[in-house]
Amino acid sequence: MALAIKRVDSAIEALRNRLGERLSTSGAVREQHGHDESWHPTQAPDAVAFARSTEEVAEIVKICAAYRTPVVPFGAGTSVEGQLQAVEGGISLDLSQMNRILAVNGEDLDCIVQPGVRRKQLNEHLRDSGLFFPIDPGADASIGGMTGTRASGTNAVRYGTMRENVLALTVVLPDGRVIKTARRARKSSAGYDLTRLFVGSEGTLGVIVEITLRLYGIPEAIAAAVVPFETIAGAVDTTILTIQSGIPVARIELLDEVQLDAICRYSGIDYPIKPTLFLEFHGTEQGVREQSALVKAIADEHGGGGFQWTTRPEERSKLWQARHDAAYAAKALRKGCGIWATDVCVPLSRLAECIAETQKDLKQSFLVAPLVGHVGDGNFHLAFVLDRDNPQELREAERLNGRLVERALAMGGTCTGEHGVGLGKRKYLTAEHGAETLSVMAAIKQALDPDGIMNPGKMLPD
Amino acid sequence: MALAIKRVDSAIEALRNRLGERLSTSGAVREQHGHDESWHPTQAPDAVAFARSTEEVAEIVKICAAYRTPVVPFGAGTSVEGQLQAVEGGISLDLSQMNRILAVNGEDLDCIVQPGVRRKQLNEHLRDSGLFFPIDPGADASIGGMTGTRASGTNAVRYGTMRENVLALTVVLPDGRVIKTARRARKSSAGYDLTRLFVGSEGTLGVIVEITLRLYGIPEAIAAAVVPFETIAGAVDTTILTIQSGIPVARIELLDEVQLDAICRYSGIDYPIKPTLFLEFHGTEQGVREQSALVKAIADEHGGGGFQWTTRPEERSKLWQARHDAAYAAKALRKGCGIWATDVCVPLSRLAECIAETQKDLKQSFLVAPLVGHVGDGNFHLAFVLDRDNPQELREAERLNGRLVERALAMGGTCTGEHGVGLGKRKYLTAEHGAETLSVMAAIKQALDPDGIMNPGKMLPD
Repeated sequence: MALAIKRVDSAIEALRNRLGERLSTSGAVREQHGHDESWHPTQAPDAVAFARSTEEVAEIVKICAAYRTPVVPFGAGTSVEGQLQAVEGGISLDLSQMNRILAVNGEDLDCIVQPGVRRKQLNEHLRDSGLFFPIDPGADASIGGMTGTRASGTNAVRYGTMRENVLALTVVLPDGRVIKTARRARKSSAGYDLTRLFVGSEGTLGVIVEITLRLYGIPEAIAAAVVPFETIAGAVDTTILTIQSGIPVARIELLDEVQLDAICRYSGIDYPIKPTLFLEFHGTEQGVREQSALVKAIADEHGGGGFQWTTRPEERSKLWQARHDAAYAAKALRKGCGIWATDVCVPLSRLAECIAETQKDLKQSFLVAPLVGHVGDGNFHLAFVLDRDNPQELREAERLNGRLVERALAMGGTCTGEHGVGLGKRKYLTAEHGAETLSVMAAIKQALDPDGIMNPGKMLPD
Repeated sequence: MALAIKRVDSAIEALRNRLGERLSTSGAVREQHGHDESWHPTQAPDAVAFARSTEEVAEIVKICAAYRTPVVPFGAGTSVEGQLQAVEGGISLDLSQMNRILAVNGEDLDCIVQPGVRRKQLNEHLRDSGLFFPIDPGADASIGGMTGTRASGTNAVRYGTMRENVLALTVVLPDGRVIKTARRARKSSAGYDLTRLFVGSEGTLGVIVEITLRLYGIPEAIAAAVVPFETIAGAVDTTILTIQSGIPVARIELLDEVQLDAICRYSGIDYPIKPTLFLEFHGTEQGVREQSALVKAIADEHGGGGFQWTTRPEERSKLWQARHDAAYAAKALRKGCGIWATDVCVPLSRLAECIAETQKDLKQSFLVAPLVGHVGDGNFHLAFVLDRDNPQELREAERLNGRLVERALAMGGTCTGEHGVGLGKRKYLTAEHGAETLSVMAAIKQALDPDGIMNPGKMLPD
């Protein structure tokens, strides 16, 4: 312990020499970097280093490597499974000042950004080019963080997740060397897919310092629709049939009654308090009408009345802002409370059953947990509304979360569709993958980060 | 060497005890397993083991591991960069008898297959379900081999490559342990993306024994079109604008005059001998017409006359069969000759320039090499028609290939878009990725296969 303290102190001294005031040991700064948006308690780093370039990141990591000091990459702080807690102390490496958009290659439908660029900033920047970046996890997350957690969100059903939309990365390895994982070609068979290895690695294999992303043309026509259902099963079955029919919906989001009620109160909108699908269609004018008519026909057969359709941008914006505020709306249900967000993803054929059993569980609990989902992918979220200081409530959330994960795994699903593992899902990885698969992940971690300095205590179980 | 011989003999003895007649040391069987469809000379394995189950593969690999004997996984033998040559001898592990389709989950739009299943066999099996598997590299390759080389082909512009369409794998590791890389959920953020690590690993990290694939509904309407152009630049610019406009073409294939002439002769079809685009559109009746009209308008502005359109299945089949026979048609250009196939992939904005410079190079050479490409992805192929026994012709192909790769890399592209590295592209990997990136790939190889028994001498440079 004495040695560990000495090491981190030496690292801090070396970093201060290099970064000056951009190395902070202030209590407030450390506290702010010791947590994300999850329920996990703050665990502050010993210091926070603010990097401004790839070269600086490489130097910072080299110093930390020399003193075997943990490095926790930090983007916008919006992760939800405890990815940012400095469980072994060390340095929080804040990348928010690396927020430049380095290139937009309109003809190639790609761009290159630094990790601190936020997704809204990127789309703002792209607006005049007629292009957009579709991945939208709700929060205004950093692109580096979204890459690290393999984020997806509402548009993934049509455009894929970060897995499909990152073309190449520049990464600072745990020893400070800098590599590029791939070139800018749309596809390649030239060697191991290091890009995909770092996408979703949650800062445990290196620091992502540049991201090459796929872009898409803004569709000629965009339309949105809201469809309330008599039953949640009707809404889920409509989703399943829509996907199975190959209708290329851009978004198909389910909100249960509790969640819909919460957002209506929070956002001051007025929908019937029923299980509801929010949909978006992208295409030509004609294509969008056609898709919408097909979905309406399916919804009509499953108790979906009052299909409301709009192509007006301001109405669409209002709709999706309300959807994105789902977590805040959930939080507002109980004054002074926070939320514990969790997500699972199951094969589409099991989605209705998985949601039904989950709701049954929730009905028997004293906790409230709105349900919202990117159901086109088989992915849904719960937000347990709780007093984070109340151990009984935390225990109940943990119990319900455990049952949810167990249920998803039993149905061939995964313990997290898009939030990542962090601290919160670590204990489920063995049940999901088996010990042998985890040993392969551990072997890769050991090969790339033998001293275990990169975001220690996260993802892989001990 | 004496030790090596002893080891392989011991391995063969142990394998024969286990497999009986399914362990072959016959000269003809070894010869057949010592090459693929590339120009690389045959290098026969010491023996060929025919496996019938995952358990058998695991036992075979364990025996080979015990005797440090190379294992070269073998599917359909259709690779084109020397992936199958047993450069260090050892055992060719023939998986063609593992050809069962284990499950089709129609509601989930996925299926599980053994590695020896051929892509045509899979689509034949799926026909009545209304589903199809889109990845189509031309050859009737095995799904295991397609996974191993990260194959793609004509439909990739719309449906992605094997990278996007493999959901999960079962893999026998180099020590004989069996792992599953992921579950059947559409997306997951639960740990490192081992699926993508094995996709494209060309048998160097383990043996793929089960593949879970995404499937798609057969579109309501399919139409094809053929468009001859005055210049190849016109055809390429039409492609670039089509992609940039977001028109969701399912196939957009370029054939240069030499290739078009070759397939007209070979397949007995009658098109004007001009640079030509073959297109396919998938969608609703209305959507297909709309897409086609949009592409026609672009083509009209770029010297594309005589847009021929068809929705008749037999005409479409004839068209795509002719396209798929491109390599055979090339081969038929010179009696008794073979081909040396190569491919590169560049960012779309550089495609016209890359093709123009390549054609200039070809015009100055005594070798003929038809050009054909999945141009919507920026990917194109050359097939050098040559006498594989003539060193002068091989040297010239090597020179042109080297210049092609250098050109693609200088444009931000990759040395192979879909054929893989094998033996043929090994020497270009350092130029493409840099030594540091390759050292990470080597560290992963070392971590998973410390004795280097899996397909040695392939992909990574020494």
